[in-house]
Amino acid sequence: MRATVMYGAGDVRVEDRPAPAIEEDTDAIVRVVRTCICGSDLHPYHSMAASSDGTTMGHEMIGVVEQTGDLVSTVTPGDLVIAPFAFSDNTCDICLDGFQTACPHGGYFSTCQSEVVRVPQADGTLVVAPATEDEAILKSYLALSDVYLTGYHAAFMGKVEPGKSVTVIGDGAVGLSAVLAASRMGADRIILMGRHTDRTDLGRDFGATDVVAERGQEGVEKVRSMTDRQGTHVVLEAVGHMAAYEQSYGVVRSGGVISRVGVPQYEDAPVGFMSLFGRNITLTGGPAPVRAYLEQGLKDVTSGLINPGQLFDVTLPLDEAPKGYELMDSRKALKVMLKP
Amino acid sequence: MRATVMYGAGDVRVEDRPAPAIEEDTDAIVRVVRTCICGSDLHPYHSMAASSDGTTMGHEMIGVVEQTGDLVSTVTPGDLVIAPFAFSDNTCDICLDGFQTACPHGGYFSTCQSEVVRVPQADGTLVVAPATEDEAILKSYLALSDVYLTGYHAAFMGKVEPGKSVTVIGDGAVGLSAVLAASRMGADRIILMGRHTDRTDLGRDFGATDVVAERGQEGVEKVRSMTDRQGTHVVLEAVGHMAAYEQSYGVVRSGGVISRVGVPQYEDAPVGFMSLFGRNITLTGGPAPVRAYLEQGLKDVTSGLINPGQLFDVTLPLDEAPKGYELMDSRKALKVMLKP
Repeated sequence: MRATVMYGAGDVRVEDRPAPAIEEDTDAIVRVVRTCICGSDLHPYHSMAASSDGTTMGHEMIGVVEQTGDLVSTVTPGDLVIAPFAFSDNTCDICLDGFQTACPHGGYFSTCQSEVVRVPQADGTLVVAPATEDEAILKSYLALSDVYLTGYHAAFMGKVEPGKSVTVIGDGAVGLSAVLAASRMGADRIILMGRHTDRTDLGRDFGATDVVAERGQEGVEKVRSMTDRQGTHVVLEAVGHMAAYEQSYGVVRSGGVISRVGVPQYEDAPVGFMSLFGRNITLTGGPAPVRAYLEQGLKDVTSGLINPGQLFDVTLPLDEAPKGYELMDSRKALKVMLKP
Repeated sequence: MRATVMYGAGDVRVEDRPAPAIEEDTDAIVRVVRTCICGSDLHPYHSMAASSDGTTMGHEMIGVVEQTGDLVSTVTPGDLVIAPFAFSDNTCDICLDGFQTACPHGGYFSTCQSEVVRVPQADGTLVVAPATEDEAILKSYLALSDVYLTGYHAAFMGKVEPGKSVTVIGDGAVGLSAVLAASRMGADRIILMGRHTDRTDLGRDFGATDVVAERGQEGVEKVRSMTDRQGTHVVLEAVGHMAAYEQSYGVVRSGGVISRVGVPQYEDAPVGFMSLFGRNITLTGGPAPVRAYLEQGLKDVTSGLINPGQLFDVTLPLDEAPKGYELMDSRKALKVMLKP
């Protein structure tokens, strides 16, 4: 089968690799219908050390079930399914708490930018979607695999609700998803911090009430001046760099919440009296337990309430994955969908 | 009047200082009935640079109102009052959110270990308590000024409730208060990490179901072994040192909450993928908005539901404050009450 493999920073190739097969009775084999490139894939694209073996890429996909292990009961061959970017048993205490990305029997996908994927814990992982050939619907299904529900997770952990003001940091696909989710949850005001007009325009369509193009201390001052110098109840941080973290505690209101879904590119950060503690700021977030939100997200898509598929502005054949990486890295594309 | 003044690490004196007077129409002058030494006073006791001016000490007190400014309407001379360790207007947006320690018109007391205190924002700060000469009740009133409600704040921000398991880190007066508050909120299990038997015994009286004397990685392993290797839903961190922070993320369950009320003796700490983010750990807490919880705390004391005054194991005359610091620093006293 064809698979996307990264051999080092900037070196992405699509090549033949052995197709996966059932290994455990709880596995399913899924033929990929659509997959995509994630903003988080750009981190290794910038920094991966060169290797001769290469690393398969991709953690987002929708597909059709081809084969199931003997213990799989919730999906059958022919089903169109959405795969969260992490697999999980969905029955353990941690999954029942709603944190499937920390399931002790789970893990992250890493081969989805290919033609065929082995899905461990198929019953706990896959969700069947109504069959369709409508490209717009397929895009929205694919957005439920990670990007939209990652934005949703930020808003969920930030306890966005009517009466709350929200700042979203980052106008990438996850940031725009966070805007859409915050709007869906009834936030009074959504300030989107981003400087790419085509993206912030989509952000306005998704529900942003204000856009702040300034960054760093200038951006912090702008948001504070717009909020009686208080900042907003919630900050949804969808970038992952230290500058975005510092911006977050600059614009959050005392007693408020910073909810992170941008994968932190740092381990240590300020949390003491001068940053979080002194003003009772809560820090939350992490890898989105997409599985916890998938059924509801699917209802919202099929009912037409949300259309997160709008985030995909470029579609390429799988074999052109390297071009997709280039387009996203140069910000010529917001989010690239790949068709095997 | 007599006042406690610190002139440098280990150098505490009680000396004559000018008595305060009304400065603003919103002030009250309060004659101190009981005050006390806080665990956080030991940080400067260990590290304050020597000075010739000295720094007045103390942020906890109950007292009798002597005089009020023209705009004060909720307290009158003769009232027995409890003062939270921070003053606040209790009318602004931030106070109404329940975060009075971040009130833009507020601040921290710093002269309570003395005979008379000026209370700014008296209407927003002081709460009248039923008059009493019962020493046990006075102790519990005094505990509402900071220590018990600081423990309560930890549990409140950690969302302790029936069905939740809790680890409390620290067997000082705040840690034991957190145990009492978590028990009051109906936690299923309360594991107290502490190694002073006389203190952990009081912790058991307050509701701790388990005591773990081990510290560091050994302590983490012990708690994990007691909880199916999962850790507890909530960790209440009542110490403030980095070792306690590291212990916190070691014993917290995936998706759980670390709630800090020990004043952090660090600014930067691990918050990235390997510590908080990867397992969706929430970090919360800060200086307790005692004022938000004071009426309910007072009801719980007067109804006999809680008896946080038990935390005071030594009472000294105000003039012996230096001895009180020594006793607390050497852990010969859990918490020292001072009588002017």
